Amino acid sequence: MAAAAAVAAKPAFARVQSGPSIDAARLRNRLERLSFHGRPSAGTFADGVSRVAYSTADLTARAWIIDEIKQAEIVPRIDAAGNIFARFGGQANQPAILFGSHIDSVPGGGNFDGDLGTFAALDVLQTVQAAKIQTRHPLEMVLWAHEESTAFGVGTAASRIVAGDLKAGDMDRVWNGMKRSDAIRRIAGDPDRIETAIRGKGTWHSYVELHIEQGGTLDKAKVPIGVVEGIVSIHRYDVVIEGFANHAGTTPMNERQDAMLAAAQLTVAVREVATARQGRQVGTVGRIEVEPNSPNVIPGRVTLSVEFRDLSEQVLRELGEAVKARGAAIAKSTNTTITFTLASTNRPALATKGVQDAIGRSADAMGLKTTRLPSGAGHDAQQIAALCPMGMIFVPSIGGISHSPKELTRWEDCANGANVLLRTVLALDALNSI
Amino acid sequence: MAAAAAVAAKPAFARVQSGPSIDAARLRNRLERLSFHGRPSAGTFADGVSRVAYSTADLTARAWIIDEIKQAEIVPRIDAAGNIFARFGGQANQPAILFGSHIDSVPGGGNFDGDLGTFAALDVLQTVQAAKIQTRHPLEMVLWAHEESTAFGVGTAASRIVAGDLKAGDMDRVWNGMKRSDAIRRIAGDPDRIETAIRGKGTWHSYVELHIEQGGTLDKAKVPIGVVEGIVSIHRYDVVIEGFANHAGTTPMNERQDAMLAAAQLTVAVREVATARQGRQVGTVGRIEVEPNSPNVIPGRVTLSVEFRDLSEQVLRELGEAVKARGAAIAKSTNTTITFTLASTNRPALATKGVQDAIGRSADAMGLKTTRLPSGAGHDAQQIAALCPMGMIFVPSIGGISHSPKELTRWEDCANGANVLLRTVLALDALNSI
Repeated sequence: MAAAAAVAAKPAFARVQSGPSIDAARLRNRLERLSFHGRPSAGTFADGVSRVAYSTADLTARAWIIDEIKQAEIVPRIDAAGNIFARFGGQANQPAILFGSHIDSVPGGGNFDGDLGTFAALDVLQTVQAAKIQTRHPLEMVLWAHEESTAFGVGTAASRIVAGDLKAGDMDRVWNGMKRSDAIRRIAGDPDRIETAIRGKGTWHSYVELHIEQGGTLDKAKVPIGVVEGIVSIHRYDVVIEGFANHAGTTPMNERQDAMLAAAQLTVAVREVATARQGRQVGTVGRIEVEPNSPNVIPGRVTLSVEFRDLSEQVLRELGEAVKARGAAIAKSTNTTITFTLASTNRPALATKGVQDAIGRSADAMGLKTTRLPSGAGHDAQQIAALCPMGMIFVPSIGGISHSPKELTRWEDCANGANVLLRTVLALDALNSI
Repeated sequence: MAAAAAVAAKPAFARVQSGPSIDAARLRNRLERLSFHGRPSAGTFADGVSRVAYSTADLTARAWIIDEIKQAEIVPRIDAAGNIFARFGGQANQPAILFGSHIDSVPGGGNFDGDLGTFAALDVLQTVQAAKIQTRHPLEMVLWAHEESTAFGVGTAASRIVAGDLKAGDMDRVWNGMKRSDAIRRIAGDPDRIETAIRGKGTWHSYVELHIEQGGTLDKAKVPIGVVEGIVSIHRYDVVIEGFANHAGTTPMNERQDAMLAAAQLTVAVREVATARQGRQVGTVGRIEVEPNSPNVIPGRVTLSVEFRDLSEQVLRELGEAVKARGAAIAKSTNTTITFTLASTNRPALATKGVQDAIGRSADAMGLKTTRLPSGAGHDAQQIAALCPMGMIFVPSIGGISHSPKELTRWEDCANGANVLLRTVLALDALNSI
């Protein structure tokens, strides 16, 4: 993952700039056709989809996409985890350049999250094929079988298995009455040989994923292309506040040990800590449970979640320490106890500088403005970053809305993103090391 | 309810000061024996009771108390609502002085709330009887059938019926699979003639209730007797905060419409508003519901309760206006909407000054310090205040704990309270008008 060796980059750009473009109409058509798989009955495109991994909608969508790949005269392959790969061209002794995304959704999700990157990948293959461009590295699209954490919960994405995150018992997890091994069988995977899905370092030359931003930064700034700096780390704390439940009528204000008051002050403190420094770090109190939760009883116990996200683990540690210090002061002033437990952390996945630069130059060549930004959401790219140089291209989500039927990206932005993916892949092909 | 006419008061006090006292050992013994009705299995006195109205524990306790009254050679009477009355002495043409409390508890309640006032009343009758004191007014104890709002919910206390709060359909309410009419039949009431339980103004000369404080004011100040100024009014608001649920990772801090942040700021504001002025008013956020309540989603909607209590309705209105103004500013700064609905109000029940004074003088005569204070909790006295002059005597709750097995009042304080009740009743007997 050395810095970009731009040796061969210039000719590649000169060639592509006036060269092939993806088929924007085909891309849009496929996104619209995919939207029928999981659409609410009597709904329209604007009503979004519920296409949870391993559901019937997921199965029918996958069958259709496999058919589309075959019609493009490319041979699809399904690995033991159910991921769909399709490879085209390149020299046999070279590792492939991988690109793609997923098509599973959250319940009540939208038509762009994952879908755009999947069909853009297929369109890139077809465009290179049609233009008869000979690449050094094979070009390989991927449809990750399962990205959203709806089915089987956090940590069960199919790309994790490819990156080697596979533990004994993982296949025995049960969700919705379905064993994970049976779920994988439903999508033509092979849970009995699941370890064959694991791929090593060096399998791929690089990985690029086009995705909608899911936040409002690009939309607000009116910038069509985001160059992702990396996928943020999350530090999540489980916080328990113990006060003393007492009668809301008979307990004077100065004798209360009000766990809800402490929780409120802590929630305000989380925001203050997160916004007290420059940067794009975020802090959220998203879950709160109050006991006994009755209008006439002073809350005796509150549990809540505090989540910080940033590209820098050092920043996350500092935010955690700052909020714990605020919590200690709040506990003292409210006569409660506040306990923080770091419930989960995950390391940030930084995008490789060489891939970021290739994306930036590709957009420049198309006259598209770019901005560099972190991804606050998780993506399959996070896993594959462990195996090869990684980069992500973001396009704007209108209003920053995502995981919602209201999720919307302009067709023009979809096409721009796919063309930047095409040019990036070709630019990467010219690089021996990234 | 004119101001105290102290004409005949002095002789009465002079007589009582060196006169009879209640039987502290008998009082304690009865409180301990009552605690077996509803005690957790294998528990001790310290484990409290669950003696919800109309439960088996309530039935067995009532039967035993009726027996105790009969053994004292006083004739008990059960009205159509199931309230137990027992009258002794006095002139036939005079209204009775009423005093008593209740023996039903919340689930997981303590051994003093209601129980103390009930047995103190019986002890007062027996003490007057034993001392052969001839009172002008009949003395009447009452055991209100159902005070806690556990069974059949808020607004169903049996004393409400006596005060005339009876609506069509009230007997048809169902709780725990039991119709209210059947519940009343269980305790030997007569739901078919329920209206006969209603009593008019002038039925009683006055009403006095001894009760534990349920707050920590007396305990903290080390004052053995509280003279209750009245039972506070409650203004309860249902508050709805609408923000916008969004991804906790991808939504920058300055673009959030975080309903939980607004709820937190409002909770802090409620406390600030309640403590910004002199007085004993209280404000509580006791209930909060967050949607979608997931660590990784910025809350889009929060509903919560805001409750203010004070003796003055004017103060309550001002507190409500102040918190609504704070809410409007919070809504603006957090980009949310906050809607307040005044969900319930009840008028305060002020204790009659003449009864307060009689309590105060009775305590003085025993050398017991007093303080005047409001009752933040509701009591049967609140209802009976509509029918006759009313007063309440409070004794300390250790640590202010109530509605809990940990509820505890020292035996000495129990006896003091009962003796103040005795002297107050005799003092009131000397008054023609209060």
